[in-house]
Amino acid sequence: MSRPNLALVGATGAVGTVMREIVSSREDIWGEIRLVASARSAGKVLRVRDEDVVVRALTPEVFDGIDIVIFDVPDEVSAEWVPIAAARGPIVIDKSGTFRMEADVPLVVPEVNPLDARNRPRGVISTPNCTTLSMMAAMGALHAEYTLKELVVASYQAVSGAGVVGPARLYDEVEALAGDRSVGQASGDVRKALANKQLPDDSPFPAPIAFNVVPWAGSYKDGGWASEELKLRNESRKILGIPDLKVSATCVRVPVVTTHSLAVHARFEREITVADAHRVLEAAPTVVLMDDPANGVFPTPLEVVGNDPTYVGRIRQAIDFPNTLDLFVCGDNLRKGAALNAAEIAELVASEL
Amino acid sequence: MSRPNLALVGATGAVGTVMREIVSSREDIWGEIRLVASARSAGKVLRVRDEDVVVRALTPEVFDGIDIVIFDVPDEVSAEWVPIAAARGPIVIDKSGTFRMEADVPLVVPEVNPLDARNRPRGVISTPNCTTLSMMAAMGALHAEYTLKELVVASYQAVSGAGVVGPARLYDEVEALAGDRSVGQASGDVRKALANKQLPDDSPFPAPIAFNVVPWAGSYKDGGWASEELKLRNESRKILGIPDLKVSATCVRVPVVTTHSLAVHARFEREITVADAHRVLEAAPTVVLMDDPANGVFPTPLEVVGNDPTYVGRIRQAIDFPNTLDLFVCGDNLRKGAALNAAEIAELVASEL
Repeated sequence: MSRPNLALVGATGAVGTVMREIVSSREDIWGEIRLVASARSAGKVLRVRDEDVVVRALTPEVFDGIDIVIFDVPDEVSAEWVPIAAARGPIVIDKSGTFRMEADVPLVVPEVNPLDARNRPRGVISTPNCTTLSMMAAMGALHAEYTLKELVVASYQAVSGAGVVGPARLYDEVEALAGDRSVGQASGDVRKALANKQLPDDSPFPAPIAFNVVPWAGSYKDGGWASEELKLRNESRKILGIPDLKVSATCVRVPVVTTHSLAVHARFEREITVADAHRVLEAAPTVVLMDDPANGVFPTPLEVVGNDPTYVGRIRQAIDFPNTLDLFVCGDNLRKGAALNAAEIAELVASEL
Repeated sequence: MSRPNLALVGATGAVGTVMREIVSSREDIWGEIRLVASARSAGKVLRVRDEDVVVRALTPEVFDGIDIVIFDVPDEVSAEWVPIAAARGPIVIDKSGTFRMEADVPLVVPEVNPLDARNRPRGVISTPNCTTLSMMAAMGALHAEYTLKELVVASYQAVSGAGVVGPARLYDEVEALAGDRSVGQASGDVRKALANKQLPDDSPFPAPIAFNVVPWAGSYKDGGWASEELKLRNESRKILGIPDLKVSATCVRVPVVTTHSLAVHARFEREITVADAHRVLEAAPTVVLMDDPANGVFPTPLEVVGNDPTYVGRIRQAIDFPNTLDLFVCGDNLRKGAALNAAEIAELVASEL
């Protein structure tokens, strides 16, 4: 067929900005790239593929002539507009949490479960939560050979996972506190310092995030769980195709701008050594192994940010647990964790149109 | 007996400073409090119990007339001087890693294993690593009733765990980067910005620590482990008296000044609910329960810093693992994690002299 037409809904947000950069820099397979946003942003001019594109308002008609549409909007906007878009014809790739766990909507990471993308009875494909995505390429590769049984995960989540307001708040707090070389040494002193500096009390985080870590991400769920912790469990099971995978996660926000990190304790069905894991991960095309701690080589968010792959290091064979590895994973939450995975699904679908 | 005389060796360091504050603010059971440091610091005048005290140089004679001595010095200094001090008569409480795993040296957390302090054939008692200590009061209380079998731990360790150079480096980096609202968004940009600002390349951390997390703490050990990760395993086993406790840990440094946090996945021999854990921890005298996430109540390092107890929140019953809790613990690494525990051991020993 001729080059497919792509629409990006939510083109002005944090992920939308990275999405425009990604579709502009990857191999150009697209006919038109249409930018769509709320009526408030309609008429704005944004750059895509070195061209100015006028943002169009979200209406049913905006999907006419489009083959594939990527939605990156809040859950409630997806709930309303994804079915409308799908009914107009295009295949919809949705970044929200709304449809991820629906039985008739595939949840796809192209290097892990590409075939699932073909089975889309509603014309909708979901892309996972950014925290889940940060480890999926690596864990999927290891699972393919050693069969994953259990995951215990602790996250170190970047503030941009909360949208553009996240980095803005971290920068605000750092600016307000910088120069005070006693800050962070007495209970509540940062909260007081931020109030003294008249920083508005509109943080997207439930506690100061500069000089702190905050063990909460998402909304409250039964049993004291945060929604991100349950997403990591449920989405991992669905993507990997292991309905009885055992998962426990604790999600913690850290003062990092972009790139999520995860400490992962992974038990497999088969015996696995560090050398085995190195061999598998070195062969995985979207994984970069950085694992030579004796020489100071391991990934950190500040090195990974802006890069597409999943970076893995600190791989150790658990001393007391059979068939188990402990490891540390970093992935850019705005790229593979969001925009890149959606773009890769779009390319996968386009190649099969 | 008359009031025992106490000596503090390493009185000028990060922990030493907190130690002077702690012995000055707790019930005063001491006769003389003698301050000891390297020859370089001898002659300095420091405040203890609202009095000026002249720091004395570390010599064998400085221990004459002393009943209990607390050492907070580097491992190699303890290795040389702890036996010298013990041979002069006083009971030695050593904060270093040198003697902790020796069979004839007890490793003591007073609210967990106070009786171990009585069996000290070498006249030496060790106090644990600050990361282990951050969770011991809480895990010890739960273990006493439910019998701990497995621990999977990920740490969020404060920079002051690396000594006074840790906070100095974090403040330096924050000052150098504050005001740049694009920092942390491109690989390596922080490293370049710090170089441009001529920040000396003498960080105690193997990567930038502002706007970053660094999955390394301690020295390299076989199998890719960092020494802090093995300490957490081996010391937990010894303190809790569970030689076959299964432990895996990943230790990560975060841009927090003081107070270590741990995400803990703990399996017990007996069934345990969140309500059970609340009951046990509410009754534990040195633990504060902050666990009402529906109302935004959980501990963060910025609230805990400067306080003595271990703070516990985010307690959840693991969905897929029997008899297992996931939880989040914060403890001030300079207080309970270091100076306070040593002071409490000293008080325990003094009460039995």
